[in-house]
Amino acid sequence: MQPVVLINPFEVPAGEEERFLKAWHEVAGHMRRAPGFLSTRLHKSLDPQAKFRFINVAQWESPQQLQAAISSEAVQKLLAAVSFTAHPALYQVIAE
Amino acid sequence: MQPVVLINPFEVPAGEEERFLKAWHEVAGHMRRAPGFLSTRLHKSLDPQAKFRFINVAQWESPQQLQAAISSEAVQKLLAAVSFTAHPALYQVIAE
Repeated sequence: MQPVVLINPFEVPAGEEERFLKAWHEVAGHMRRAPGFLSTRLHKSLDPQAKFRFINVAQWESPQQLQAAISSEAVQKLLAAVSFTAHPALYQVIAE
Repeated sequence: MQPVVLINPFEVPAGEEERFLKAWHEVAGHMRRAPGFLSTRLHKSLDPQAKFRFINVAQWESPQQLQAAISSEAVQKLLAAVSFTAHPALYQVIAE
């Protein structure tokens, strides 16, 4: 089965990059140990003024496994402690 | 040198997916023949209501080569004929 792709564009105000990165690495540390995780890539904009300062692109075996990882207590606790505006959605690659 | 990543989230209203895809494939046909092009992946959201219905992730050798490709007469002509809301920016992968 084709993997599902989570793409998550983050709006991170200037000066908050370090706080964002610390939180992202903490969450990613849990996610990458969860069943179904395939890969993740965190992108940082070259332009500090870009609307989306960071965009995460992660591959998972299935939407259900991703949802289970996000719903875990450890991840929920971390997410509750940070408050960056994000636009996560699931995608499939339709053209290359 | 690390490639630069163009990430372009598109807002495409329901019912306009076909029009978008036709335009995207026309533009992509020119871009992939330009110097510096490495790869492209077009992502479509599983949820038709996602804020960004399509997200393109393309790798280029340099920002200059990407800019030259976008500035070409053929691509400019195609872009002038379509009008989807897009949020293109250049990125580098900072964590995997």
